[in-house]
This record gives sequence, C-alpha cells and structure tokens, in this order.
Amino acid sequence: MSQATPSFKICWEDFHVGDVRVMGSHTVTEAEILDFARQFDPQRFHVDKAQAEKTIYKGLIASGWHTCGLVFRMACDGFLLESSSMGSPGLDNVRWLKPVRPGDTLRTRIEILETRPMASKPELGMVKVRWEGLNQRDEVVVSMENWGMFGRRTSA
Amino acid sequence: MSQATPSFKICWEDFHVGDVRVMGSHTVTEAEILDFARQFDPQRFHVDKAQAEKTIYKGLIASGWHTCGLVFRMACDGFLLESSSMGSPGLDNVRWLKPVRPGDTLRTRIEILETRPMASKPELGMVKVRWEGLNQRDEVVVSMENWGMFGRRTSA
Repeated sequence: MSQATPSFKICWEDFHVGDVRVMGSHTVTEAEILDFARQFDPQRFHVDKAQAEKTIYKGLIASGWHTCGLVFRMACDGFLLESSSMGSPGLDNVRWLKPVRPGDTLRTRIEILETRPMASKPELGMVKVRWEGLNQRDEVVVSMENWGMFGRRTSA
Repeated sequence: MSQATPSFKICWEDFHVGDVRVMGSHTVTEAEILDFARQFDPQRFHVDKAQAEKTIYKGLIASGWHTCGLVFRMACDGFLLESSSMGSPGLDNVRWLKPVRPGDTLRTRIEILETRPMASKPELGMVKVRWEGLNQRDEVVVSMENWGMFGRRTSA
C-alpha cells in the first residue's frame, strides 16, 4: 500500500508559502495545569500555588511542555488530523514568551514558511511551519518552527 | 523574600561546563502512549495500532511531545526539583532521532555546555544544557539544547 494516500483531505501539495491560519480555542484550567505538571514537570511554580507566588512568576503557570501540547492539539483538530502528516524530525527556536496562567484562553496560529520535495522519500514532501500559541490578549505565549513530513497526492 | 534561595541543594554556582549526568529509568507502556496522544497529539501513528502499522513507522510510536515530557520528568526527579531552577525561555535544536515504542526503557542524559550570570536579574544565572533521551540500546531518541535560569547562592 502506497504511503502517498490520496484519501487525505490535505496533502503536501496543498501547503503554500505565506498561508496563515488561526484555529482552536482552549481555556486552560488550574486542574489541567496541575495534572500535566504532576506527570511531566513538577517544578514548584507549576504544581504549588503558594510556592509559585513567591517566585518571579508571582503565581501558578503552565509548564512550557503543557503549553506546547495544547497548541499542538488545536493544530491536530484544526488541520493535521485531516492531513497526510507523517510526523516531524524536530523543532527549532522554541520560545516561551509569556506565562500561561489558569483562565487563559489559547488559540493556535500557523504560517507556512517553505515547502520542498523529500529527496529520500518520493512519496513525501516537507513543509516548514511557524507555530504560535496566542492568548486572549493576542499575545504570543509560545512560538517555534519545524519541518513536517506530509504524504504527496502524487508521488514524485 | 529573596529569589536567591540558599536553601536549594543545587544552585547556579554548582553547574560546571562539561559536567555529564545520566539519570532515571522509565519503561514506556502502550497505555501511556495512547493516553498522552489522545490528549495532545492524536495522529494515527500515535493512537491507532492498525493504522500505525501501515505508516513508515511500522507500528505505534510515542508522540515526540510525550518523549520530551518523559525525558524532562526524569530530569526533574534527577536534579531539577532539588535545584533553584526558575524555568527556561525556550529550546533549540529539538531532534526526534529514533521512534519510541511500547516497552522501550528511557533514561535522561544532560551535559552542561555553558554558564553565565544574568545581566538583568542579579539573583539568577543562566545554564546552557544539552538534553538527551536514551533508550535501552543506548540510542539517542531525542536531543535538544536550552538555557535554564537558576537562582544563585549569592546574589551578584
């Protein structure tokens, strides 16, 4: 069975440099922040309200990993799950620019920066994406870039 | 209350360029992979065994975000929670080098690359760390670098 699966709604050919899309809406609760942090990042400013007050953050903030996960989930629901996405080799320039606090409402913004065929796998193409998490004040709370692999509608 | 909290066992002054430490041991279960992916990254190769078999991964693999979280949690237990860590502005060069599959046993390796005082906050210092997740075959499954902020035992 070919990996270039034409049944996906969005394939590599559908990404165009300069495309911008804002998607999702998720209000972060204190319970979510605590639950994630207890599993993956139990630093005091992520799991202990009283201790967090005494830090430079002046209160509980979400783990940066959690913020990334929330932004990525909105991208999944917004376009990735109906695409031929085949994952990614990594991320560059991840920047946590603003704290995410209980009650903040996040959205995900993507911009297509570059596309190219994949030399080693003719059934796949690469797409360079800038990812941003925005809060309810339109502040960028996290930004990053990556190359994603996507199945092609027509193999090269 | 000063942020340069001498009560922490590990402060900025205790990081030295070239220090290497390997810590933790965590065997990843299929249930964990599915649980994380359903929350944050429900792409078919992370949530659906049958579909995953048909992709280039030839089976279920952990979300890269999940791998990062597991590696980071071992770092928390290994040294961060007894340190004066004050978080991080971001990450560079995140690379998912090998798939993580159910049954893989991960460890975390850190290497101290650089340290410097923080000009804007005399009670903090910066530490540049290389992070690696290793599997049971000593293969690097994920690598990244970041600058962490740590409280100083003695304010500058």
